Amino acid sequence: MKQETAEKWGLFRGLLQKIQSYHEAVALMNWDLRTGAPRKGAETRAKSIGLLSTEAFKMETSPEMGEYLAYLSQPAVMDELDDTQRRMVLDVQEEYERSVKIPPEKFQAYTELTAHAETLWEDFKENADFPGFEPYLTQIVEKTQEFIDYWGPKATRYDTLLHMYEPDLTVEKLDQVFGQLRDRLVPLVAAVTNAPNKPEAAFLKQRYDVGPQEKFSLFLLEQIGYDFEAGRVDETVHPFETTINHGDVRITTNYKQNDVASAIFSSLHEGGHALYEQNVADELAETPLGQGTSMGIHESQSRFWENVIGRSREFWNRYFGELQQHFPEQLKDVTAEMFYLAVNRAENSLIRIEADELTYNLHIIIRYEIEKMLFNEGLPVSELPKVWNEKYQTYLGLTPPDDGVGVLQDVHWSGGLFGYFPSYALGNMYAAQIAGTLRKEMPELDALVEAGNFQPIKEWLTDKIYKYGKSRKPAEIIKAVTGEDLNPDYLADYLEQKFKSIYGL
Amino acid sequence: MKQETAEKWGLFRGLLQKIQSYHEAVALMNWDLRTGAPRKGAETRAKSIGLLSTEAFKMETSPEMGEYLAYLSQPAVMDELDDTQRRMVLDVQEEYERSVKIPPEKFQAYTELTAHAETLWEDFKENADFPGFEPYLTQIVEKTQEFIDYWGPKATRYDTLLHMYEPDLTVEKLDQVFGQLRDRLVPLVAAVTNAPNKPEAAFLKQRYDVGPQEKFSLFLLEQIGYDFEAGRVDETVHPFETTINHGDVRITTNYKQNDVASAIFSSLHEGGHALYEQNVADELAETPLGQGTSMGIHESQSRFWENVIGRSREFWNRYFGELQQHFPEQLKDVTAEMFYLAVNRAENSLIRIEADELTYNLHIIIRYEIEKMLFNEGLPVSELPKVWNEKYQTYLGLTPPDDGVGVLQDVHWSGGLFGYFPSYALGNMYAAQIAGTLRKEMPELDALVEAGNFQPIKEWLTDKIYKYGKSRKPAEIIKAVTGEDLNPDYLADYLEQKFKSIYGL
Repeated sequence: MKQETAEKWGLFRGLLQKIQSYHEAVALMNWDLRTGAPRKGAETRAKSIGLLSTEAFKMETSPEMGEYLAYLSQPAVMDELDDTQRRMVLDVQEEYERSVKIPPEKFQAYTELTAHAETLWEDFKENADFPGFEPYLTQIVEKTQEFIDYWGPKATRYDTLLHMYEPDLTVEKLDQVFGQLRDRLVPLVAAVTNAPNKPEAAFLKQRYDVGPQEKFSLFLLEQIGYDFEAGRVDETVHPFETTINHGDVRITTNYKQNDVASAIFSSLHEGGHALYEQNVADELAETPLGQGTSMGIHESQSRFWENVIGRSREFWNRYFGELQQHFPEQLKDVTAEMFYLAVNRAENSLIRIEADELTYNLHIIIRYEIEKMLFNEGLPVSELPKVWNEKYQTYLGLTPPDDGVGVLQDVHWSGGLFGYFPSYALGNMYAAQIAGTLRKEMPELDALVEAGNFQPIKEWLTDKIYKYGKSRKPAEIIKAVTGEDLNPDYLADYLEQKFKSIYGL
Repeated sequence: MKQETAEKWGLFRGLLQKIQSYHEAVALMNWDLRTGAPRKGAETRAKSIGLLSTEAFKMETSPEMGEYLAYLSQPAVMDELDDTQRRMVLDVQEEYERSVKIPPEKFQAYTELTAHAETLWEDFKENADFPGFEPYLTQIVEKTQEFIDYWGPKATRYDTLLHMYEPDLTVEKLDQVFGQLRDRLVPLVAAVTNAPNKPEAAFLKQRYDVGPQEKFSLFLLEQIGYDFEAGRVDETVHPFETTINHGDVRITTNYKQNDVASAIFSSLHEGGHALYEQNVADELAETPLGQGTSMGIHESQSRFWENVIGRSREFWNRYFGELQQHFPEQLKDVTAEMFYLAVNRAENSLIRIEADELTYNLHIIIRYEIEKMLFNEGLPVSELPKVWNEKYQTYLGLTPPDDGVGVLQDVHWSGGLFGYFPSYALGNMYAAQIAGTLRKEMPELDALVEAGNFQPIKEWLTDKIYKYGKSRKPAEIIKAVTGEDLNPDYLADYLEQKFKSIYGL
């Protein structure tokens, strides 16, 4: 590396380091707001979060940053950098270019609008008041359309949004994979719905004290390899994972006194996100590449640990006994097999976040189709409830009794998160595809799960996925790990096999 | 206010607001480190705290800040401001001038040295290794001496340090009040030490489960008026109070399984600090004046609630029954009176933080005399253990078996906190003096405490002290509340009366 390059690189890294400290502060301030900050400090806290985020944004789009990037991205200079350094420059540059294209006052107005709408959304949802929410949503869609113009539309306008959450994913590709998936899932869901025998699951909904639930959840997290010295577990209404810094990857879960399964699967889900973040290579720590590569790949890891592992027969063969010891009364007539069947009971339902592994994907396909209509086909916001209800009837045979449990159920749109929903189904597809390769390379997989020996599995995933952080694109990772591009047949095969067996089809 | 002044004032307040957000982030990051942040994230966290603190410091000493202050502090402009605004300008200006006098690289080096020394101190203390610690302490004293030169010594060099924690307090004044106090306390302590009958206190040291201790501590905090919607209570090894923002005033306490009194008095102590911070007037919130006015006045409030209220006979007449319900076995043969006597048992001891209300002040006077020798009389650091041990023998009749429980026992000096110790004894003196006035103005004081009705007391303190935050200097407050300057006789009278009665002297 030439001296000038070394100097510029040092300055660039120094600035990134500084920005990282701001992100750490903001992440902690947000975590704290959700885990136990007192009510009366929340307003000032929100302002402070806004201020520090804006400071970070200013540095990310500063003239210095522009200057470092302009220098470092020159082909001759790029040749002096190693692969990771090059990828860091490209990653930061992409964010930089996206950000500087938006006039700051537009960005500020958008941020204020979505912050406001997110707060209002709770009430509109509660009151099932779509007409009340409509003007806000209309503005958010309009401003998002304006941003797409600033960014420059890709193959379609919606492609621009998709790309933000899943780099290089296109409408063309998603139409194909979601089409393929839908065609295989709709008949499977119908068959399951009409199956004469359904697993008994009522015993999951007895009274289960929170204390033993917490012990068991923490035990499972420890079993799958969550590092408690590099994280902590708290309780919140909506579980989440947040990376404060590389040695501080926190998760939350939620204990329900009338549902023993909820906390278990929330913990495994967020634990999966955390395993990814905790096992990014130390060399990438505290850099823009020191995090999961995309929403879809991130979700593949939460789903892998929650569903592929956590909802497997082998898992409950191993752990049901332990759970039973915590709840001897409630589970005295239940066997491991019965428990396995119960936590896999599938049922058409109206609420995405309560959906089972099988029908979940249809909830996502519905949202994907609607978002595409909004951004590519000019669907007016006012039409959303009608389209939503029609699609729920078509795919799931249900019509929401009101918009609160229909089109208003998710917070995402109020925060401007269009293009995000597909990540959830991508996660399921990636997880199944990755699990297919894992099973081939590790034929003893079931035996390992049944022995509660997750170390080799975690190591395999670390070696193939986690350690790279954001230094590999999602498509690269999938290709490198599984030898092929995203292929929805893995998920369809996995679900078919699993649910046909469970439902005796 | 002229337009130019209004504009400058707006910019000045905007900059202060921004700095405040940084302080909020740093306070939360520190709180989190002490209450449960994972070990592996601590190193990065420390760096981030350093970075954000430095950013705040840069803004506090920035050319803009200098420009606003230069404009606003002009006599003609000061005339346009109201009293609170003027005091804010003066307060910020004083900090500014102190800070800009130190060359940044010196300040940086000092910060790194003390951070390092604080970490090392734990081991040196553990190993009672003063020679190991000596080179660090020598450097810290040297650098502090250098800072005194930059700041410009006051009447004596040590005055400069005192002033930082207790504005306008002088060695001359402290010599007088500490002399007066010492002359009255030494014979009292001797009499107590030689008293034939001592209160029975062994029952305090049985096994007390943490759960009920926690319930009782939280109950007491609620009783004295701590606002749980504007704060939270956690557990740490060393209890503390920290103001994250005006609506978020947190405290910690420490539950000891073999000591029922420890958490109660820690909670009341930190609760007293918190009552002060929570009741600063809203108009001062999130400004540099929105906090306690000095270390001494702050400490007076923690001591007032811990000792004057919490160690009173009336308090235990009211609350002992409740405590007994939590621990029926342990306290079955104990009465309210016995409990009152036990928590007031006085004993000469070696460790300041374990000292009782009576002897505590002697520990402080020892430290004050030693710090004065260090800064005003050229006492070499190497002589500290010898001087320390001699003074403990003189004042308390004890000689530490090693330096770990002697000169190395406090963290303060490793962090460069010279001039801070007197605040603790000032707190006791202020508390007794304020309580004297309170008792005159509220003759029903004892009855209120015995009824657990602290609302009028909290309101009186809010009206006289809390609401002003830092907009009144400590000396102003004491004069305005009690009608006279700091007078150690109130504390001496209070202690004499209390301990003569307890020890039947």
